[in-house]
Amino acid sequence: MCNYVSQNTFSEQVSTWKMKGFDIADMLVFLQNVGAVHFFCNYEESRGNYLVDADGNRMLDLYTQISSIPIGYNHPALLKVLSKPHNLSTFVNRPALGILPPENFPERLMETLVSVAPRGMSRVQTMACGSCSNENAFKSMFIWYKNKERGHNQPSQEEINSCMLNQGPGCPDLSILSFMGSFHGRTMGCLATTHSKSIHKLDVPSFDWPIAPFPKLRYPLEEFVRENSQEEARCLEEVEDLIVKWRQKGKTVAGIVTEPIQSEGGDNHASPDFFKKLRNIARKHGCAFHVDEVQTGCGPTGKFWAHEHWGLDDPADIVSFSKKMLTGGYFHKDEFMPYRIFNTWMGDPSKNIFLTEVLNVIKTERLLEEVSRSGKALLQGLYELQAQYPHLLSAARGVGTFCAINARDDATRDRLILKVRNKGIILGGCGEKSIRFRPALVFKEYHVHLFLNIFNDVLAEHK
Amino acid sequence: MCNYVSQNTFSEQVSTWKMKGFDIADMLVFLQNVGAVHFFCNYEESRGNYLVDADGNRMLDLYTQISSIPIGYNHPALLKVLSKPHNLSTFVNRPALGILPPENFPERLMETLVSVAPRGMSRVQTMACGSCSNENAFKSMFIWYKNKERGHNQPSQEEINSCMLNQGPGCPDLSILSFMGSFHGRTMGCLATTHSKSIHKLDVPSFDWPIAPFPKLRYPLEEFVRENSQEEARCLEEVEDLIVKWRQKGKTVAGIVTEPIQSEGGDNHASPDFFKKLRNIARKHGCAFHVDEVQTGCGPTGKFWAHEHWGLDDPADIVSFSKKMLTGGYFHKDEFMPYRIFNTWMGDPSKNIFLTEVLNVIKTERLLEEVSRSGKALLQGLYELQAQYPHLLSAARGVGTFCAINARDDATRDRLILKVRNKGIILGGCGEKSIRFRPALVFKEYHVHLFLNIFNDVLAEHK
Repeated sequence: MCNYVSQNTFSEQVSTWKMKGFDIADMLVFLQNVGAVHFFCNYEESRGNYLVDADGNRMLDLYTQISSIPIGYNHPALLKVLSKPHNLSTFVNRPALGILPPENFPERLMETLVSVAPRGMSRVQTMACGSCSNENAFKSMFIWYKNKERGHNQPSQEEINSCMLNQGPGCPDLSILSFMGSFHGRTMGCLATTHSKSIHKLDVPSFDWPIAPFPKLRYPLEEFVRENSQEEARCLEEVEDLIVKWRQKGKTVAGIVTEPIQSEGGDNHASPDFFKKLRNIARKHGCAFHVDEVQTGCGPTGKFWAHEHWGLDDPADIVSFSKKMLTGGYFHKDEFMPYRIFNTWMGDPSKNIFLTEVLNVIKTERLLEEVSRSGKALLQGLYELQAQYPHLLSAARGVGTFCAINARDDATRDRLILKVRNKGIILGGCGEKSIRFRPALVFKEYHVHLFLNIFNDVLAEHK
Repeated sequence: MCNYVSQNTFSEQVSTWKMKGFDIADMLVFLQNVGAVHFFCNYEESRGNYLVDADGNRMLDLYTQISSIPIGYNHPALLKVLSKPHNLSTFVNRPALGILPPENFPERLMETLVSVAPRGMSRVQTMACGSCSNENAFKSMFIWYKNKERGHNQPSQEEINSCMLNQGPGCPDLSILSFMGSFHGRTMGCLATTHSKSIHKLDVPSFDWPIAPFPKLRYPLEEFVRENSQEEARCLEEVEDLIVKWRQKGKTVAGIVTEPIQSEGGDNHASPDFFKKLRNIARKHGCAFHVDEVQTGCGPTGKFWAHEHWGLDDPADIVSFSKKMLTGGYFHKDEFMPYRIFNTWMGDPSKNIFLTEVLNVIKTERLLEEVSRSGKALLQGLYELQAQYPHLLSAARGVGTFCAINARDDATRDRLILKVRNKGIILGGCGEKSIRFRPALVFKEYHVHLFLNIFNDVLAEHK
């Protein structure tokens, strides 16, 4: 009954399509939604900061697969992994890590994730992607909160019975506080904390969880310290109000989740002071504090984790990651020990092998310093361009190469991105009208100038 | 601030641990929750149906990483993939598939997923794991339902605004009907449809969605046709009652999700007739019909998809997969076109390369026939053992090698699994007191007899 097409039939189908003049894009239209596809790529020919498309065009990539390529395309260190025979079985035999880990897995974790654990965290749980990392981090916070409330981890019979029916007290009415403008993923738990675009959320049932305003700061931050600090105080006050209100509603806030820089939502920054105070509010109200570093983690801000810029006295409780880290997962404090966090794969050790090399390259090539240097040049260049084209650009901002600038409006933003692409530069958008810069960590100062020159040309020509 | 341990420091740390006499398991205890770890494995030395542990013990594997190894360990066809230079860039450069697919991606989809699409489905969306597949399939059903209700896909301004706050009408109070005993994953949307063990659900907020009883059949099915058919009728009646009740509550059922065989929940079967009627109920009430083949898909029942055994007149709307398929994802009818289903990775093309080889091996080695043959021998052997040890075993059941048998109680089940493991056989449990058999598709009749002999010895010795 299943239409198990034989090799011949398949080749015939493709030949027929090709004879009819269909190209690869046409084929994909038959199989999938292609509304979001920009173009097809030749990953074999891509190198370093340059992505090559299916027609052989070589483009300087400042978007890097939505910020998920850490050290550029086809880095020799990564290719070498596949030439070592003892690595191959890890690719071919994907284990159920939670029950039957490979014998070298603890050492592999030490070499990779544990070696870059944020301060205060020595434990880590791997997951297959960013959404699963956040979903399971949320579950850890709920379980932690309930055990804290109980004073032990032995549920009552009523809890055991009711949870099987999705009902309280076993499935409690707890909540996660998130911020307007945030993005934490698109699975249903994550989506209840995502508020960047309506198109992500429309038509999907959600939870009645509190949503605080995220500071709307004026840039450059150092010129608007007083105004920004008032705006941050307003948002923090609202956070506390919401925690109290939701507790009164019977939907107590078990955890607060935030990005260090709201990335999908438009590269919205807040000050270290804001985050320190937010961390204190979480502690004061007994909520866990979860920093989502899926997009900011692994170096693009010039520190390995963006939240290292804050100088927290009391570390976060949970830090989740994915994208440039190649594997998803989250670090956590001891008391968030995930005794009941489990799934079949729990990550993918083949990604950890690549991560070993990525971390090694970051260290030996001093890429965090490189990022700081390139980032400084990039931000300086953006400042100059917005001064030169104030009718087109504003609000240049960033830390490391994790930069953004606003266009006049969304139509202008989209046109600028397209024009720049036609000149061999790949950029991405975020928020309402921002352009975001997400180059790989191997993006050097001369790439910055290459980009700035082309961007300048496009801006000069732009009507 | 991040404790970026230098290579030296790391080696010193490991040396210190080794000097202190810690073994690898001790190390992992420091880093992760290891409560569920059975033992550490040497995947390099594992071959075919045999898993080798870190001490060099070679074990016949009837559990295969929770049913996720399709053609055995280190299959030469899979190893060969990594020796072909043109494949390497796919492993090293993971694309954001939704926006920048590799040029060969449409052909790769045709060769793999589309070539095994269930009848009535030519479209497929890849995802990274089973939970993400089901989460996004649920979202597709909600979006489909709302568009059907609206008569178009243009949301109102009120819907757009309210969804950003997790509120209706933008986030509607729709539901998914699932069955008691089901397992559809552990992320929060999936978890609201999972009802196999309380430990999965406890302390995690959930949705008030309807849960129908799944038939509790008597085995062997062919001996209890009348009783079983009455039990199935009772459950179907309850399904319709719940659909009506939840509509009246204002939480209309947008979709029904079911496994073809409830796997984690205890290998609970229902007849083709039950599923055909369930499909009709879904259509009658305007609900989507989602078959979750994450554990049953890719051949273990002797057909490529377990639901092919039903002979549905009207195909399912959505069929999700993962595990043996190596990549997650779901097939869907045209009207479930996922225009708003998106994430960074949307799967992993390196898994599709392996899947090409897996499907080729299944075909050339006629593994579905092999599964039917081995499955028949396995089930026959289980019937004989339960006749011989009626105080220990009952309810042998299965399709293909996807078999199970009940032990007297959970303690007996756990002891039997442990004793068998000490004799070199890996089995898994499921449900309250079942042993489940999940060998790879290369499990042959002589492996069945090897297993049955050892199982017989253990049963004979069991007090």
